[in-house]
Amino acid sequence: MKLELKPIGVVHSPYKSKEDVLHRVSSTVCEIGVSKEFEEGLKDVEGFSHLIILWIFHKSKGYSLHVKPLWYKGLRGVFATRHPNRPNPIGFTVVELLERKGNILKVRGVDMLDGTPIVDIKPYTSHDRKGNIRAGWLEEAHCKLRH
Amino acid sequence: MKLELKPIGVVHSPYKSKEDVLHRVSSTVCEIGVSKEFEEGLKDVEGFSHLIILWIFHKSKGYSLHVKPLWYKGLRGVFATRHPNRPNPIGFTVVELLERKGNILKVRGVDMLDGTPIVDIKPYTSHDRKGNIRAGWLEEAHCKLRH
Repeated sequence: MKLELKPIGVVHSPYKSKEDVLHRVSSTVCEIGVSKEFEEGLKDVEGFSHLIILWIFHKSKGYSLHVKPLWYKGLRGVFATRHPNRPNPIGFTVVELLERKGNILKVRGVDMLDGTPIVDIKPYTSHDRKGNIRAGWLEEAHCKLRH
Repeated sequence: MKLELKPIGVVHSPYKSKEDVLHRVSSTVCEIGVSKEFEEGLKDVEGFSHLIILWIFHKSKGYSLHVKPLWYKGLRGVFATRHPNRPNPIGFTVVELLERKGNILKVRGVDMLDGTPIVDIKPYTSHDRKGNIRAGWLEEAHCKLRH
């Protein structure tokens, strides 16, 4: 079973490089433009404060099973990271929806490069909010960065 | 830009139909089997309490921009739902990781049919936990179901 993904829209962000994304400011407002042919599918999204965006790591070439995150010096299993070089280079981001104007979504929380193709939009619901989470090596690494 | 997805593993669940999924018990433990060739990519996932699973709606045929959720009588924009008939039929589920044994993940929170192909696994982190969420038509519909 294979599945071919087709973009349904594109991200407009001020981020031209991975470093720009790393140093982004969380309050930055960006736009997601959905292709006109899919605009009708956006009906009712206005009621949601947050949306799940699935997108393509379009600059990623190939994959590794052990990867080195940009801000970290060690190697980790790719499925324990959000690294772009994954077997299926799909990205996942939850954005805050500020406004919809037709096929344009104004959002906050974008961590995608300018021009990133998006492939799906889903409502973020209370089921997606998990409590009591542990974040393994990420927690340890962030702790070390702070101390 | 198109992207061809290849499964990296498969879900083993007791759910044989959409109705089984609708009436699932949240405590049910299921397994996700990752193909041996990708097992090394699972290194370090044990440290995470929750994982994001991206998967293929492999029984879905075609898409509509307005869809009727199984438990609901009205039509909604497809991007304001988790309906399978989407332009790119990718599913998203956050599962609780109970144990990893080699290439097998024991998890709770599966809402996928038995045999569902998975395409990505990502760590769930505090960035994915959003506070103060509003869930538009879903909240209203669930309220009506309860009263």
